Amino acid sequence: MNQHAILHIPDSRYCFACGEKELVLRLRMAREDEEAEVSLIYACKYDFAIKRRQEKMKICYSDRLYHYYEIRLQLEDVRLAYIFQIKEKENSYFYSEDGITETYCFEEGFYNFFQMPYINANDVMDVVEWMRSAVFYQIFVDRFYQGDCEKDTGYITMQWGDTPTPKSFAGGDIKGITEKLDYIKGLGVNAIYLTPIFESLSNHKYDISDYKKVDPQFGTIEDIKELVFKAHEKGIRIVLDAVFNHCSMEMAEFQDVLEKGRKSAYYHWFIIEGEFPEPDKMNYECFAACSYMPKLNTADPGVQDFLIDIALYWIREADIDGWRLDVSDEVSHEFWRRFRREVKVEKKDCVIIGENWHDAYPYLMGDQYDSIMNYSFTKACLDYFARENFSAKEMADKLNGNLMRNTEQVNFMMMNLLDSHDTHRFFSEVSRSKDKLLAALSLEVIFPGAPCIYYGTEICLEGGYDPDSRRCFDWEEAGKDREVMKLLKQLTALRENKVLQYGSVHIGEEDGMLLVERSWQKGTIALWINLSKEEKEIPILGGARVLAEHLYEKKLENNGFLMVEYEEA
Amino acid sequence: MNQHAILHIPDSRYCFACGEKELVLRLRMAREDEEAEVSLIYACKYDFAIKRRQEKMKICYSDRLYHYYEIRLQLEDVRLAYIFQIKEKENSYFYSEDGITETYCFEEGFYNFFQMPYINANDVMDVVEWMRSAVFYQIFVDRFYQGDCEKDTGYITMQWGDTPTPKSFAGGDIKGITEKLDYIKGLGVNAIYLTPIFESLSNHKYDISDYKKVDPQFGTIEDIKELVFKAHEKGIRIVLDAVFNHCSMEMAEFQDVLEKGRKSAYYHWFIIEGEFPEPDKMNYECFAACSYMPKLNTADPGVQDFLIDIALYWIREADIDGWRLDVSDEVSHEFWRRFRREVKVEKKDCVIIGENWHDAYPYLMGDQYDSIMNYSFTKACLDYFARENFSAKEMADKLNGNLMRNTEQVNFMMMNLLDSHDTHRFFSEVSRSKDKLLAALSLEVIFPGAPCIYYGTEICLEGGYDPDSRRCFDWEEAGKDREVMKLLKQLTALRENKVLQYGSVHIGEEDGMLLVERSWQKGTIALWINLSKEEKEIPILGGARVLAEHLYEKKLENNGFLMVEYEEA
Repeated sequence: MNQHAILHIPDSRYCFACGEKELVLRLRMAREDEEAEVSLIYACKYDFAIKRRQEKMKICYSDRLYHYYEIRLQLEDVRLAYIFQIKEKENSYFYSEDGITETYCFEEGFYNFFQMPYINANDVMDVVEWMRSAVFYQIFVDRFYQGDCEKDTGYITMQWGDTPTPKSFAGGDIKGITEKLDYIKGLGVNAIYLTPIFESLSNHKYDISDYKKVDPQFGTIEDIKELVFKAHEKGIRIVLDAVFNHCSMEMAEFQDVLEKGRKSAYYHWFIIEGEFPEPDKMNYECFAACSYMPKLNTADPGVQDFLIDIALYWIREADIDGWRLDVSDEVSHEFWRRFRREVKVEKKDCVIIGENWHDAYPYLMGDQYDSIMNYSFTKACLDYFARENFSAKEMADKLNGNLMRNTEQVNFMMMNLLDSHDTHRFFSEVSRSKDKLLAALSLEVIFPGAPCIYYGTEICLEGGYDPDSRRCFDWEEAGKDREVMKLLKQLTALRENKVLQYGSVHIGEEDGMLLVERSWQKGTIALWINLSKEEKEIPILGGARVLAEHLYEKKLENNGFLMVEYEEA
Repeated sequence: MNQHAILHIPDSRYCFACGEKELVLRLRMAREDEEAEVSLIYACKYDFAIKRRQEKMKICYSDRLYHYYEIRLQLEDVRLAYIFQIKEKENSYFYSEDGITETYCFEEGFYNFFQMPYINANDVMDVVEWMRSAVFYQIFVDRFYQGDCEKDTGYITMQWGDTPTPKSFAGGDIKGITEKLDYIKGLGVNAIYLTPIFESLSNHKYDISDYKKVDPQFGTIEDIKELVFKAHEKGIRIVLDAVFNHCSMEMAEFQDVLEKGRKSAYYHWFIIEGEFPEPDKMNYECFAACSYMPKLNTADPGVQDFLIDIALYWIREADIDGWRLDVSDEVSHEFWRRFRREVKVEKKDCVIIGENWHDAYPYLMGDQYDSIMNYSFTKACLDYFARENFSAKEMADKLNGNLMRNTEQVNFMMMNLLDSHDTHRFFSEVSRSKDKLLAALSLEVIFPGAPCIYYGTEICLEGGYDPDSRRCFDWEEAGKDREVMKLLKQLTALRENKVLQYGSVHIGEEDGMLLVERSWQKGTIALWINLSKEEKEIPILGGARVLAEHLYEKKLENNGFLMVEYEEA
């Protein structure tokens, strides 16, 4: 047995409450040791020396190196002590805080059992319920649709449809989105994530000079209120972009520091070496190497008050439903803790989605965000669909590993994306293969979490890296309702299915295909994706109902997918 | 290579800032792979694709299964991206967020490098500086010394020195401690941890009925103020016991609920099933199975306000220096986060020490406590010194594993103990071997963290489990200043040495002995403990100065120890 591989971390993604009396426990073991019999020995911690229960654990997830065993407990007494027992052939081991041992002294377990000492209600992370069925649509505002024809258009520097440059303005605005809500709803979308809309010199508006003012290019406060109101009428939620890591050097507070240096009341809002910030010398912290985007010092209470006020202001004023947090991994944990406390008091089901490209578990433990943009999922899809670096098995391994980064609740709220304004367009990455795009969309829809569709995906908009991934939407093409859009609508509609909202997940490889199954109560939804060059037979159970398919007729062709639903007999 | 053994977790005890520009990184590998060459490849995350630095990592800690490699970085730019490179014979591997791979694409590292995205000042955990040199003395108040002879002594039920029962009262009080401050200081102690002193029916006072009132048996608010004031004059700090998990059923708020049930304003201060709490039916949450100690619901804002007010009150009124948190693992993380925020604003260097018997990392990440009572250290000492379950190597493994549970800062603040009011007396556990007691004390003094000496250890007080571990102090014996006391004083004096306050630690086995070394700047302090039956030669370097020893003369006898200091040439 590979003892080195065995891992459990109490009070973590390996042991977490998902209700006031409910708990999930995970144990990691080497894949090669799958013959071993793994069980959990547990009791109320005050009884552990005397009487205990024992239950077998099952393999629920597997990646390249490991199997992950999982068990769900419903507890009467929520003061849990536990250890694991691992039997292989004639050998039996115990796994406790003291590691792997051949014997275990239950009488002195209070020194070294694992424990969930108590499930306190205020430590249990809730799922924002609407996220279970959410289908996001990400809009880069300047490039979606110009709805306001009466505004001062002097700032527009490109013809709609021209190739964008880093500094070009196309004229898209909030009224344009409001006008297109029926179109968006027609895609099966029920949540919109907008890139920033506040006053800023750039087209992307990630350099904000006034966080309480909608940029005049995009509209007014009335426009955003109207958008949210009308979106809510149609059952669509609106998430805005909180750019709290940095601001624009045009912001009044930074200008004050530029003028007064250390004598400014705002000097400590920034992180400056010296008396004055000097943009040429870059003697202050900023985003990347952009001196025009000075970093905000969230260790400063004044900055915290300022940003929290903004976060609450837009919830109160416009009734928005969530914040996506720009460059959130560079902002302090302490700030995000306060942010969560105050935002959730203002609006309990306001979702908080970080922009963390990496394993974000330290931010997703329940005290900071609910979710992140799941770029690890993006990368896996690139490796599997676009670059074909991954076999179906390797893709299954990768997706399982991704799920094991977080608790179940977080997985249900994850924002899964194929692309965004910060990547190449996925359609371009798959060399304009509509088949592959559709297969990837089918995976995005069945994978735990909320799919996020980047505007234009439905019309196969192309594009390389920024600024090319931010092309103007093609409304003529959108009117044609072609195959990709049709199938996309079919897929997004499936998010209404309870199996996808609540179901457990199994991801594996079957006959060279990727197989993803979600199960809840008696229902199962299964998805096969075939990237192999051979046509594949699918072992569908009798009574299975096809939910969506592409390139399937008795056999699944290369780059095709098949999604079916069936009920346990 | 055992790939399964390799572990790194970003933004955790495996990667933490210990200053605004300083970072420690750890990598775990299988012990059997120690021939491998391990290095860190790193850069500012915005430069990672272009240029990187590479530095070798060294083995700093080892337990039974693993070696832990460590590296300390001083950074100019605190936005760190990194991966590990592991070379063994002809093979070379990379270890990133994507696991072990033979190749690594630096251009797309932004998807899968490890990172410390930014070191924000407010996320850096500070060491409470006085903890570096702290020597604690734990006093069970009723059994230490009766200083107030004018108080109503009607409650006293046992003669001083009689065998205690669970319900006996001996008369010790706060004035008694104040009177004995010179004695305590003479032991080399500079911090006292008192078991609870607030109004309560019991001798231990872990069932508190009024948190703002000193129990009349122990004295008055003036007495505790005087104790702290006089202790501070002598350079001794005072830590009180915060019993915030539960209270006494005598507390007015619980009595109100007993009377009014759900109509009481305090109903939600407790966790009750039904209209009224019914002690006979135990239909409410309580400590262990003690209906007279109802659990406080720290998810309730009113309870939070009430407890925070108490915590701040005693800092303001009596200027105490810390709180030890009773049954802290059963209290909500959310509450401890607020507790820390408010306590540290009131008094920045107020230490927060949890009573967690288990791996408490989730509480020790910088947002909750500073430290815990290190019962895992206690257990290791029992296994090594008392039960001789452990060889010197096994003890070294265990102590290294203990250190790897936490960050360096936490290790420097750990409260290390051999025994307490909740265990058997260590002297009894080692079958009254003064040699073993002294050897264990020498280890406690050199081990990172603050030693905590349970009152009476210095006079070899005996005792089994509660109530026997809470015997009356023997003042006649204390006057004799025997060998154990003398050597203890010699050991505690060493805590003034900067090497022990700031030094790195190496723990291993040498010729069947336990070897602990601390190093700082040019100085090293080394400790050998010999539990083997053979006399051992000690390979002391020339110029080494003996700091303390027992049973050593040229050779180290069974149960002896030798501590020396030397300087790098």
